[in-house]
Amino acid sequence: MGSDYPPSLRCGLPGLILSLETAFILIFWFCFSNESGSTPKDLDIYPAFQDVNVLMILGFGFLLAFLKRYGFSSTGFNLLIAALGVQWAVLVEGFLFSSSAGKMKISLHSILKASISVTAVLISAGALLGKANPIQLIWMAMVEVAAFVTSRWINVKFLKVEEHTSLMHVPIFGTYFGLAVSWWLYHSSLSEKVEKEKSNPISDLFSMLGVLFVWMFWPSFNSVLIVDLMERRNAICNTYYAIAVSAVAAFALSSLSSRNGKIRMIHIHHAALAGGVALGFSAPIIPHPWIAMILGLLASMVAVLGSHCLQTYLNSVLKIHDTCGVHYMFGLPGLLGAIVNVILFIIIKRANLSSLGYLALIEVGSFMLTTAIGLGTGFITGFILTFKLWKTLPASKYFDDQAYWEFPHLAYRF
Amino acid sequence: MGSDYPPSLRCGLPGLILSLETAFILIFWFCFSNESGSTPKDLDIYPAFQDVNVLMILGFGFLLAFLKRYGFSSTGFNLLIAALGVQWAVLVEGFLFSSSAGKMKISLHSILKASISVTAVLISAGALLGKANPIQLIWMAMVEVAAFVTSRWINVKFLKVEEHTSLMHVPIFGTYFGLAVSWWLYHSSLSEKVEKEKSNPISDLFSMLGVLFVWMFWPSFNSVLIVDLMERRNAICNTYYAIAVSAVAAFALSSLSSRNGKIRMIHIHHAALAGGVALGFSAPIIPHPWIAMILGLLASMVAVLGSHCLQTYLNSVLKIHDTCGVHYMFGLPGLLGAIVNVILFIIIKRANLSSLGYLALIEVGSFMLTTAIGLGTGFITGFILTFKLWKTLPASKYFDDQAYWEFPHLAYRF
Amino acid sequence: MGSDYPPSLRCGLPGLILSLETAFILIFWFCFSNESGSTPKDLDIYPAFQDVNVLMILGFGFLLAFLKRYGFSSTGFNLLIAALGVQWAVLVEGFLFSSSAGKMKISLHSILKASISVTAVLISAGALLGKANPIQLIWMAMVEVAAFVTSRWINVKFLKVEEHTSLMHVPIFGTYFGLAVSWWLYHSSLSEKVEKEKSNPISDLFSMLGVLFVWMFWPSFNSVLIVDLMERRNAICNTYYAIAVSAVAAFALSSLSSRNGKIRMIHIHHAALAGGVALGFSAPIIPHPWIAMILGLLASMVAVLGSHCLQTYLNSVLKIHDTCGVHYMFGLPGLLGAIVNVILFIIIKRANLSSLGYLALIEVGSFMLTTAIGLGTGFITGFILTFKLWKTLPASKYFDDQAYWEFPHLAYRF
Repeated sequence: MGSDYPPSLRCGLPGLILSLETAFILIFWFCFSNESGSTPKDLDIYPAFQDVNVLMILGFGFLLAFLKRYGFSSTGFNLLIAALGVQWAVLVEGFLFSSSAGKMKISLHSILKASISVTAVLISAGALLGKANPIQLIWMAMVEVAAFVTSRWINVKFLKVEEHTSLMHVPIFGTYFGLAVSWWLYHSSLSEKVEKEKSNPISDLFSMLGVLFVWMFWPSFNSVLIVDLMERRNAICNTYYAIAVSAVAAFALSSLSSRNGKIRMIHIHHAALAGGVALGFSAPIIPHPWIAMILGLLASMVAVLGSHCLQTYLNSVLKIHDTCGVHYMFGLPGLLGAIVNVILFIIIKRANLSSLGYLALIEVGSFMLTTAIGLGTGFITGFILTFKLWKTLPASKYFDDQAYWEFPHLAYRF
Repeated sequence: MGSDYPPSLRCGLPGLILSLETAFILIFWFCFSNESGSTPKDLDIYPAFQDVNVLMILGFGFLLAFLKRYGFSSTGFNLLIAALGVQWAVLVEGFLFSSSAGKMKISLHSILKASISVTAVLISAGALLGKANPIQLIWMAMVEVAAFVTSRWINVKFLKVEEHTSLMHVPIFGTYFGLAVSWWLYHSSLSEKVEKEKSNPISDLFSMLGVLFVWMFWPSFNSVLIVDLMERRNAICNTYYAIAVSAVAAFALSSLSSRNGKIRMIHIHHAALAGGVALGFSAPIIPHPWIAMILGLLASMVAVLGSHCLQTYLNSVLKIHDTCGVHYMFGLPGLLGAIVNVILFIIIKRANLSSLGYLALIEVGSFMLTTAIGLGTGFITGFILTFKLWKTLPASKYFDDQAYWEFPHLAYRF
Repeated sequence: MGSDYPPSLRCGLPGLILSLETAFILIFWFCFSNESGSTPKDLDIYPAFQDVNVLMILGFGFLLAFLKRYGFSSTGFNLLIAALGVQWAVLVEGFLFSSSAGKMKISLHSILKASISVTAVLISAGALLGKANPIQLIWMAMVEVAAFVTSRWINVKFLKVEEHTSLMHVPIFGTYFGLAVSWWLYHSSLSEKVEKEKSNPISDLFSMLGVLFVWMFWPSFNSVLIVDLMERRNAICNTYYAIAVSAVAAFALSSLSSRNGKIRMIHIHHAALAGGVALGFSAPIIPHPWIAMILGLLASMVAVLGSHCLQTYLNSVLKIHDTCGVHYMFGLPGLLGAIVNVILFIIIKRANLSSLGYLALIEVGSFMLTTAIGLGTGFITGFILTFKLWKTLPASKYFDDQAYWEFPHLAYRF
């Protein structure tokens, strides 16, 4: 361990967590109760809810575990901010969306929507992986959930975006929020990849495990909130075709873009998921599998090319360090999906020409608004997170579990 | 390898397993048949059954894989005693609970209840991890399943405890049975932690994987047997809130209890699950989420504080060595849940004052009876397991896969 | 790295993948559309479909990850050929089985059947693990899927085999196809186990993870296509009993067959799954659990004894190198299941003696035909795969990720 010890979390972390939990419990006490009534309508979604839960807790947790000395923090802090974020998201959702008088009713549906909202935080945390301490992550989760739910509320109330579509903005919002925060946490030492920022074969296999879980359950993620059963079925099938094509294409594009035709694991991770992200908006309305397949192929290209060409640019010119490459995994494919969705929307509704321009404008405005709110609130949050008050880590301690975790063994040797 | 070779399992293990299997097959032959009829009512629970199955086989298997030289045995013997225990539990359940004449009918429901009963054995095996050989584990599984199902039968028949509640005694029973057995297997060399009893970062990550699976599917575990759909929904939601809070609080309490504010992985493992265990009894009847959340917070505290304060005491004074800390993960949170359940029961039923005292006494008696039977039968089983007949392991070979597994590689190096 | 560099995949792999994907997209464009209509009948199977998906992508991927230097290829190429194979299988299935005019309708059911067909490829890939490069694997997947679906079509059309039964030929077909291909890829250096062909404790644990997923979800695999709900329930329960017994027996038989009573991990992997494979055909019609249990016991014996006695014979005399031992995991138990199915069929239908002989002959003919087509097409495919055109790997580069993957770290050290 170097000479500059990382600041102890003892004074900050327990206090912060316990006050937040106390506040949450009090708010739940006064404002929320379990939905009651004769028949629960939400038990049907329980298997799909568990798919989303596995995707979040296990998938994202292990997906982020690719850094060779940061496996505990990747999986542990992912659990921490997911579990904390869901409680907070249920509260914010309740206050913004509930209209009934008296205590607000919460159900499995509330937890599901909260879980999907929290995915934004998990994606942002990917961009900050190894650089932010748990105190910063918790504050970020609080602000980001509030900002995302508010952005969703504006979309639903004023732009009349459907509930499912509004939640599918989550990858875009999470990415740009995370990148904006990451700009503030930039440090000159990040311009070169340090030894600790690399993966090793075992950590990459753990990461593959997470990626496969996210990959397998992305059809559930894209479909679980769709009410119409036919549309839900189409969303499942279309997402499946898209991720199948994007996973296959990832191998081709990775081999094509590397020096000697070898495949890079990181490309597979990025591009395999890109297809599912790109389908987020349009999965239920795509009428033919081939459209989903082409979208999957394009998303895979965007992910690999972005990762190959943009990464150095972002890092050196814009001074944005994106540890996990969420920009290529979620951001760009999400934008691609949003654009394709507008085009599909125009084609499908072209009969009704009078209001077409107006509606298309709303669609475009909707995701641009989300991106803007993400960037804006992320920028402010990033500034706040640089305060010394949050026990910010010296850059020499980045990417290292030893800053936060007590090891029973002396040397951390993989 | 030291000079005192571990005794070969060749004479004992195959004979024991094959005779048990032959006996099981014969009993199934003469006494059981698949349920028949026009429509199966138990297919609905199949997704939740698979959740419980994953929790048992994968979750517990990898949860126990934290010892650095004991990964094969942790996952392998977990599969062995789970698969063997379920068959035996189906038999014992059938004989004790079935009332119909002729061949007993078994269904998916039977397998599900047997699986939940067998969780007791898996918990006990956690306390004995690394110290008991598979022959001892199998005998323990046989006795423990029989004892637990009998204890459950007494609860259901005489104390009129509901089926779901009676099965939720499983963490308490498993813990105290395991601790009683562990007392007999104590060896003076266990007073200090040997090198082999420690974890390393990779084995801890595998363990995290198991913990996350148990964490994610605990709502299914707590709800799958509830018949009333509304109560089942509430059980799912309440358990979710409780485990969310206990996972979050685990980070705060671990950081608070360690020397320099660092987080200990073992605390996260223990405390994250504690919330779900504490909700076992009362999950379906808790009317408001905040009650579940407070219970989760308390369970997390009990788990971390227990682990922090009691562990040395238990080990040095009572001479009970609990490898995996099941006392803090399952035992104490289970007792907490049972006590809270009685209090909740009194509050909810307070209108009907005449029989209240009597009913509350039954509730208290029920879990005290379970604990007593667990301790008692565990004590007897532990005594039997010390017989040389079972090829007991010398203490120098504890916590080492090489006693049981053939390695194709010479050196076991992580 | 030795002096004979592995050929770069750059010229072959991207071109092959991208042309195949383009072709698939075009065929989907002109010939297929999503099933439409008022109510989707296939949403019910979604949870079970996901079980099969997890079994394929995660289960097989990690099951094959036991080679210590081949984890990336095992999990990565498994995803590649699964995702590519499913698209191709949907196409071939559509052309062979669809009878309607106009565009063929595809649904979740189509993807499910395609997934099960592709399992044949994943099994064959297990026999070739470490020896075939991704170009060879892709060609093999293309030929094998076409051959299997054609074989299934013959079974269904001419021998009037039921749909579910015809798909359950998949382990037999996959094994014998893979072994035939493996005969062509044999190299004298394979007669002795090289260092790289061994496992290490960590890779074995990853493999255990995969095995457990396959084990847990085998009941879904054996039941998901059964239409009759009662039969589906029986298939689930019977498969569960069989795999429980085969997992338990694996420990006994492994300890019995090894030199000093120690258990071999590879036996557990092979034998634990054997029970499920053996039940493939007869799971829905077995009336009593004990029959399933005996079948599980026999399958476990066949797997362990086969692995113990036949492996050297196959390798040295027949010159067939089966890296993962699929012959003992899937082939022999599958044949056992097919034979038992014929016997059960005769016993159950014995009342109707007139046509019994004829029907039994059809049953026998059906699986012999599948085996023959598997061996035949596998032999031809193996010959084609030896062409230098496919950048075949020199034997010194077998079992090594470094031939295909770019490592950010210099040395591959576990």
